Amino acid sequence: MATAEVIAVGTELLLGEVANTNAAEISKLLADLGISVYFHSTVGDNAARLSDVLGQALARSDIVITTGGLGPTGDDITKEVVAEVIGGKLIFSPELWARMLDYFHKIHRKPTENNKKQAMVIEGSVPITNEFGTAPGVFIERNGKVIICLPGPPHEAIPMFKKLLPRLERFSSGQLFRRMLKLFGIGEAAVEQAIIDLTTRSNPSVATYVSPGEVHIRIAAFGEPRLAESEVANIEKEIRSRLGKWIFGTDEDTLEKVVGELLLRNGLSLATAESCTGGLVANRITDVPGSSGYFKGGIVAYQEAIKQSVLGVPEEIIREYGVVSQEVASFLADGVRRLCRADVGLAITGYAGPSGGAPGKPVGTVCLGLSGPGGRQSKEVWISGNRLTVKARAAQEALGSLWSYLKALDAASSGVL
Amino acid sequence: MATAEVIAVGTELLLGEVANTNAAEISKLLADLGISVYFHSTVGDNAARLSDVLGQALARSDIVITTGGLGPTGDDITKEVVAEVIGGKLIFSPELWARMLDYFHKIHRKPTENNKKQAMVIEGSVPITNEFGTAPGVFIERNGKVIICLPGPPHEAIPMFKKLLPRLERFSSGQLFRRMLKLFGIGEAAVEQAIIDLTTRSNPSVATYVSPGEVHIRIAAFGEPRLAESEVANIEKEIRSRLGKWIFGTDEDTLEKVVGELLLRNGLSLATAESCTGGLVANRITDVPGSSGYFKGGIVAYQEAIKQSVLGVPEEIIREYGVVSQEVASFLADGVRRLCRADVGLAITGYAGPSGGAPGKPVGTVCLGLSGPGGRQSKEVWISGNRLTVKARAAQEALGSLWSYLKALDAASSGVL
Repeated sequence: MATAEVIAVGTELLLGEVANTNAAEISKLLADLGISVYFHSTVGDNAARLSDVLGQALARSDIVITTGGLGPTGDDITKEVVAEVIGGKLIFSPELWARMLDYFHKIHRKPTENNKKQAMVIEGSVPITNEFGTAPGVFIERNGKVIICLPGPPHEAIPMFKKLLPRLERFSSGQLFRRMLKLFGIGEAAVEQAIIDLTTRSNPSVATYVSPGEVHIRIAAFGEPRLAESEVANIEKEIRSRLGKWIFGTDEDTLEKVVGELLLRNGLSLATAESCTGGLVANRITDVPGSSGYFKGGIVAYQEAIKQSVLGVPEEIIREYGVVSQEVASFLADGVRRLCRADVGLAITGYAGPSGGAPGKPVGTVCLGLSGPGGRQSKEVWISGNRLTVKARAAQEALGSLWSYLKALDAASSGVL
Repeated sequence: MATAEVIAVGTELLLGEVANTNAAEISKLLADLGISVYFHSTVGDNAARLSDVLGQALARSDIVITTGGLGPTGDDITKEVVAEVIGGKLIFSPELWARMLDYFHKIHRKPTENNKKQAMVIEGSVPITNEFGTAPGVFIERNGKVIICLPGPPHEAIPMFKKLLPRLERFSSGQLFRRMLKLFGIGEAAVEQAIIDLTTRSNPSVATYVSPGEVHIRIAAFGEPRLAESEVANIEKEIRSRLGKWIFGTDEDTLEKVVGELLLRNGLSLATAESCTGGLVANRITDVPGSSGYFKGGIVAYQEAIKQSVLGVPEEIIREYGVVSQEVASFLADGVRRLCRADVGLAITGYAGPSGGAPGKPVGTVCLGLSGPGGRQSKEVWISGNRLTVKARAAQEALGSLWSYLKALDAASSGVL
């Protein structure tokens, strides 16, 4: 199996001013191609140390990919050091320079004398066009090995690397298929228990991950493409037969996206009333393109007076049950549904902290209410963590409860139970 | 100057399933202590390769820090490989085991036989307590060099490393002082031009960074603590004399935090009316602890009907000027201020895309309105980017405009101009 390694170049990485996300992105793309990555390294803008690291990498790996150090300043030395390590000559490329002038024209800026450095190419290399910046990349083959130099900014490096993937296919020993199943309403331990017999093999592999308020199951198979794909599909089917009722989506799905699809499919509109989440639920719902097709609007009823005056929660209900209670959550859900003339109302009231809370209702207590064609529902949950964690998890619980509510309506309307 | 390097251990990092943020965090803490980090590396759960990387690191650096590979499973080999490389013996620690049993008790779980592996210590090492997980860390000194092993999860590794910093002080050659100034309402080019004479030195150093909708100026000085601190203070004073009117905060400040301080100091309350930002502005405002002291609430008026029925924007104004217009933004700001009985109303209406827009008002057009004791203000901006970028930048512009508005009120009330 072919091996690759990724070298990040830049003193700012060693000072901790920016995290190295390129190595992860590049490695994921290589893994999908069936190319093993055995090492990542980071080195500063220092010719001697970079030369050492490059020499070591070329001795032990088939493919060496660098990121960073292709800019116009004196600190940017990657191309120069690579040329020296492989014994290549740097020559000025008028074509590359013309392309860079075009780019500068497009962004209404003028090149400096320094930029000419970026038009130098290593003899025998293929320059890689950069659509989002001035630094072209480098692709060179030497003695059966491949060296790729990419710029540092991820939004430049990753699109350039993706364009090069076909050139790496000859190193591929198969293909990796991944499928992520996303679950809400069940804990990781229970998920693990349900599929423990599937998690012992390494290819295809099944693993569970926890994301705040969700459990993800990752299925991966590596090998001959058609076989790997069908192995993944068979395992997905098996997992669905055991845990299907908790699976809300796959891969890039989010609760807000899936909720939007259920609302659209059932011709329902939504309105939200939020207290402790402060607009986060409405914000997540409106992150989805096309949400204006089903989301009417929301009220952030942060102070008690708004809950009464705008959403019509009776003062005596607040006095009797407390502002953080399932009763108030239900009234809020009814109120916002009426005010916004929506089919479904979703309400959240809670104590996000750090101060606040009430007797028997510590900081982290959150009550959710739902009102709509499926009737009224409410529940109380307790979330541990700081203010931002409570907000985030409360929003997640609210969207998860809405998903369960809509799924039941959807099943009823389509005759499936 | 003492040198350090950071080695991350874990196949999941090489598969690109998670980015290595520990190396950046640890390096930043080391830089503050005046310890140079020359290399980061990542290696999989493979004893031979980890042994090579560790040997190389110990040969060239004074301090070697590993992250990952301290868990209870057979894949977790860091402690075992370190013991082998330095020729140390692994022995079972009853004290450590007792401490782990305590932790398990606290999280209501039972340890497995595997967990006993985590109670093994390298002879002569100091175990580092882990308050957020089961894996203890390792601190060893050998031949004047230090080896530190930390667990992989950042919320475990970073607090543990911070506790060890005093033990590394003898390697320190001085101290790094950093100060970040944060600006709103001015572009990076203009900032650079204003302070170009200050950016040419390397110690103290001055550099500019762009964060969406903000410009940051980083001042850093390294050396004898009192001298370094006063150098940073002098440069800050000089920059404030040139760019003070755009500086809204320093270091960990955010616009929402600074806006909250201005509201509190002037005894003013706030309400928001949001269309395209979908609750993001209210969400940011309520991220600040204590925001219930000045934030009354908000309306997410996503569909046109809500703008009319709840916030009282006259239908003919929407018809005449369009829903995304400075006129509608002003009516929304007035309406929400009245509805929530707040002193200041802030409104945002715009086209977040990907579809939508109107003649002369493409996707990305955003109108802001403000209403309060400083009178009415409105403006139109255009933001390029996808839906999430438009939402984020529109929220940033809204909070920035609110900051300018409140700053003027604050200056007027305190007699400063």
